[in-house]
Amino acid sequence: MTENATVPDTTYTETLSPTARTTLRRNRVRAQLDRSELVDVLTAARLCHLGVIVKGAPLVVPTAFAYDLDGPDQEGTLYLHGSVAATTLGVVGEVCVTVTVLDGLVLARSAFHHSMNYRSAVVRGTPRVVEDEEERAVALDLIVNKLVPGRTEVVRANTRKELAATRVVAVPLYEASVKARTGGPVDDDVDVVAGGVWAGVLPISEHLGAAVPAPDLDRAGADAGPHVSGVIV
Amino acid sequence: MTENATVPDTTYTETLSPTARTTLRRNRVRAQLDRSELVDVLTAARLCHLGVIVKGAPLVVPTAFAYDLDGPDQEGTLYLHGSVAATTLGVVGEVCVTVTVLDGLVLARSAFHHSMNYRSAVVRGTPRVVEDEEERAVALDLIVNKLVPGRTEVVRANTRKELAATRVVAVPLYEASVKARTGGPVDDDVDVVAGGVWAGVLPISEHLGAAVPAPDLDRAGADAGPHVSGVIV
Repeated sequence: MTENATVPDTTYTETLSPTARTTLRRNRVRAQLDRSELVDVLTAARLCHLGVIVKGAPLVVPTAFAYDLDGPDQEGTLYLHGSVAATTLGVVGEVCVTVTVLDGLVLARSAFHHSMNYRSAVVRGTPRVVEDEEERAVALDLIVNKLVPGRTEVVRANTRKELAATRVVAVPLYEASVKARTGGPVDDDVDVVAGGVWAGVLPISEHLGAAVPAPDLDRAGADAGPHVSGVIV
Repeated sequence: MTENATVPDTTYTETLSPTARTTLRRNRVRAQLDRSELVDVLTAARLCHLGVIVKGAPLVVPTAFAYDLDGPDQEGTLYLHGSVAATTLGVVGEVCVTVTVLDGLVLARSAFHHSMNYRSAVVRGTPRVVEDEEERAVALDLIVNKLVPGRTEVVRANTRKELAATRVVAVPLYEASVKARTGGPVDDDVDVVAGGVWAGVLPISEHLGAAVPAPDLDRAGADAGPHVSGVIV
């Protein structure tokens, strides 16, 4: 464990949605009106979990995403993509896109008060299949560049065949809420006084390892280049 | 980038479910019949995404979980817990629990073939509210010990009040499927021959930072102890 480090004040934040159903009923103390919390989560996460209803039952799958605050939808656009054959992108009706970043494990003196520090965004809405070729191209570039910033500048353009095989859907960022927990454990006074149990936070972060070149990488391409180096730093 | 490292063969695996709807329609090459893949994902992940239907629309929230292969449900039990006031644990009908581990970013020569290496389990079923006190206690211990192995051995037992405030639900591990991608990019031959673009994998792993003690930690409890040290290693 580290010396001289202390856990910051415990805070719960929530970005309120303009609709009632995504305004959290519980833990209203977490309320926060700033949409920058939403952008923070969307920026930090690598993937989202897309929830749809298939034949009357919920189905949740992980998938890549990107967002465009200047997108054509209300409050900006969240983009998903996939094969035109994918069930989850072909459903009619509402979807729920949840994006979560895990920041730490919270160890309290009691089992009951154990928790996790996290940031999570929930975006609900009816997806729009993107048909406009320019918007499709922008969305697909955003998704690749979210994976590795600047990547589309070094790879060839999508072919017509590739574009035809890909479905792009847009979800408005309008109906969104964010929940976050930060800081140390919130213990009952009696347990703090009793002592004898370590309490605190185990921070969690993403670690990007050294780039592993493809076995068939040619000599010319063996230089990872700034678009790869950049993401590793 | 590393020297002398190569990306392993690209593989797609899928653990087939006994039901048709969780048997993936696409990418059947990923088929794998061993349930150890499911256990691997459930072990490696810190949280799940729970999908439910609320007033006709899908809702997906992140939450802690645990599993018990010897649990009372068919093929074992996945446990979730939360406040008795939580909407997502009080819904009637089916749920979908998706557990995802991100292992790497896959950079191909073309934007189209970019991908992620991941392992993801989808468990679908009708949750059972756990009423039996002994099973409730076991489930809650499993959830805390999944966060930090052995943790329940050093904290006090749950109080009657704490137990009364907590809902525990069980989902059978019976209807489950696993998808996984490993290995390097799968590029079109023409792009490999053209060269000039770096291709490979950026591995992603979880990094646990040094434990941060709570500000009100007493001297006696300041020793993190093996249950904390163990998880950091």
